[in-house]
Amino acid sequence: MPKVKSLEDFLIAELKDLYSAEKQIIKALPKMVKAATSEDLKEAFQNHFKETENQVQRLEKVSKIVGKTLTGKKCVAMEGLLEEGKEIMEEDMDPQVRDVALICAAQKVEHYEIASYGCARTYARLLGMDDAEELLQETLDEEGNANKLLTEISESLNVEAMEKSD
Amino acid sequence: MPKVKSLEDFLIAELKDLYSAEKQIIKALPKMVKAATSEDLKEAFQNHFKETENQVQRLEKVSKIVGKTLTGKKCVAMEGLLEEGKEIMEEDMDPQVRDVALICAAQKVEHYEIASYGCARTYARLLGMDDAEELLQETLDEEGNANKLLTEISESLNVEAMEKSD
Repeated sequence: MPKVKSLEDFLIAELKDLYSAEKQIIKALPKMVKAATSEDLKEAFQNHFKETENQVQRLEKVSKIVGKTLTGKKCVAMEGLLEEGKEIMEEDMDPQVRDVALICAAQKVEHYEIASYGCARTYARLLGMDDAEELLQETLDEEGNANKLLTEISESLNVEAMEKSD
Repeated sequence: MPKVKSLEDFLIAELKDLYSAEKQIIKALPKMVKAATSEDLKEAFQNHFKETENQVQRLEKVSKIVGKTLTGKKCVAMEGLLEEGKEIMEEDMDPQVRDVALICAAQKVEHYEIASYGCARTYARLLGMDDAEELLQETLDEEGNANKLLTEISESLNVEAMEKSD
């Protein structure tokens, strides 16, 4: 018999998933900084590393609010997404192609987080956990901005590549 | 030795991934229509089913442009995301909680597609494949709208749930 699931169960599951995802991202980002060629991209990854450390701390605050530890679950989806990034770093390719591919891999990571933080924020709101909702919304906004910045960098790289092919 | 990867390799890989993802979504959506309680949500899933069929046709047009078949690759990430949706349908829970959980699962699917179509569109643009770029952008816009609609429905459900808990 399946157990009856409540909104709180969904919130906890989502938070554990995100906690594992963020920890994995912290390990991956320094490698992405090294692999990037564009200075703008290196800087974006570097800044996102600091942001991610802060996002982990926010999750720890949410953990206290909900009264549950967030360790002990591995986010398999994030593992798969970061594996894609790793493959890109190992392949032999033109540095500009690598930058575009790294941006794509990073945007998949960002979109996963945007969806997951969006869900967690909605569950917190429904449960009337205002402080948790606010913390999750802060991170959600940061992820949205990180994604937009990657799009901007990607567009500037595109221009250079198009010029080269003329 | 890893093979040298070009932008075209990345485009083809992304298109194959999306083709498998869309095919899996077409199988999953009718079950999500049945599992949903809110009429708005049922209708949204139903409409997205028709949209997805059209998106598959667009990918087949892109397949002709790039001169490669898109079959033979399974999108494992989408398999995992749809598995989450399946678990929600099998669990015993309040219909309104299920609707919120189904929306979250569907938004994770949408965000995955938004990221992947965004990448494919960028690769097509860099390769100067204007017709492919346009077709991929059309689908990207549809996915963005589908995601926004789900957020709107989720917000209207939230209001009802909050009222209930008063």
